[in-house]
Amino acid sequence: MIALALIGIGTGSPGHLTREAIAAMADADLILIPAKGEDKADLAELRRALCRQVLASPPPLAVFEMPTRDVTDGYRQGVEAWHDAIAARWEQVIRAHGAIRPALLVWGDPSLYDSSLRIAERVARRLPLNLRVIPGITAIQALCAAHAMPLNAVAAPVLITTGRQIRGHGWPQGVDRLVVMLDGECSFQSLDAQEGTHIWWGAFLGMPQQILIAGPLPEVAGRILETRARARAEHGWIMDIYLLDRCRAR
Amino acid sequence: MIALALIGIGTGSPGHLTREAIAAMADADLILIPAKGEDKADLAELRRALCRQVLASPPPLAVFEMPTRDVTDGYRQGVEAWHDAIAARWEQVIRAHGAIRPALLVWGDPSLYDSSLRIAERVARRLPLNLRVIPGITAIQALCAAHAMPLNAVAAPVLITTGRQIRGHGWPQGVDRLVVMLDGECSFQSLDAQEGTHIWWGAFLGMPQQILIAGPLPEVAGRILETRARARAEHGWIMDIYLLDRCRAR
Repeated sequence: MIALALIGIGTGSPGHLTREAIAAMADADLILIPAKGEDKADLAELRRALCRQVLASPPPLAVFEMPTRDVTDGYRQGVEAWHDAIAARWEQVIRAHGAIRPALLVWGDPSLYDSSLRIAERVARRLPLNLRVIPGITAIQALCAAHAMPLNAVAAPVLITTGRQIRGHGWPQGVDRLVVMLDGECSFQSLDAQEGTHIWWGAFLGMPQQILIAGPLPEVAGRILETRARARAEHGWIMDIYLLDRCRAR
Repeated sequence: MIALALIGIGTGSPGHLTREAIAAMADADLILIPAKGEDKADLAELRRALCRQVLASPPPLAVFEMPTRDVTDGYRQGVEAWHDAIAARWEQVIRAHGAIRPALLVWGDPSLYDSSLRIAERVARRLPLNLRVIPGITAIQALCAAHAMPLNAVAAPVLITTGRQIRGHGWPQGVDRLVVMLDGECSFQSLDAQEGTHIWWGAFLGMPQQILIAGPLPEVAGRILETRARARAEHGWIMDIYLLDRCRAR
């Protein structure tokens, strides 16, 4: 039986690591580090640095190239085939190292807009797998903490959604507060009525290069676009997230 | 200037504490521990135990009685007045101890269905305050991790809402997955169509007495009701949360 741990590591700050995450990292006999091309070399390096920083004697790290995603057959089929290919890669690395307590360090939390759980399910069809998930600080928590801002208005709902969703469907019905993730296109620009809408935006949350901008959307949208483009050019990649509220009530 | 730290501590497991949270606890010169009557004595005791467990020499702990909530003038007014009363209590305790780096240990994360940020704003009107928020593992992350379950379906939105909301308005439009919090009444019972709906329920998440139930809602609803009532009677209190999906797609 192989005990695979998916360890949420938060959004890049060593301070986000939980005691449970550190214990699981120390207990692993192999840490799989996916490399996603040069753009994201920073992220692989960050995982290595985390291991060195919090563990006296880190387990071996296995850096492996991620398969590339083919979306020619449509978004969903592309994702399915891609997850299959990643699962095969995990299996190969685990077998090659004879690991029995392998671990993956998952950005943020393994439950939120992350494919690790779905990939692990696929690996479980090919290897006898005992899966353990260790929760981590998500970008949502890191955003709210950095702005000292509650996620929800009192007793009110909040929708977690994606850039693609709001570009396709506009502001969702029945909810005044949104968190937008996976948005490479600043999709807040596509919202019809921006009047009265506030935004709390953050990039590289918890990291030394963290950037925060907040204010009425029509006033700060341009500044967010410019700042994001400049930071992305400078670092070669960016991770950002934002909270929108169309009532301004906190 | 008083540096007030709101520290997210996760849902009761010492393993949920982040490095940043532990450092902030160690750095505090006073930790405020609200006591909410006998029912929740366990929770005050749990905060004390956390301090003893992770800090070599914990700072002084100030246990104080929480004001009671008066809802005779309506829900919102009751909440406003209650927050004012709590803010006055915080101020009183901070002044009485001459604390300059006081901290509060907030269950889960200070941004999610928690009033600490709103109370701190009120305190800031009465004391020169520098507020710092340290994110924590929420019950949502703990629930998903315990069930090894993704929060969202691929690229799809998720609504975080309350028991009151779904009792009042039914299943919200435009979203197939809900997380329900603050639900003392098992409000999933009020949903019209339960056919095809799955539930992932958890109580005392991350604690030794953790309970998990998952399955098709019509099949497991009765078991959740019974289990919840029995556990609540046994411990004198309960904290629970659940995820609902009406597509069954993962």
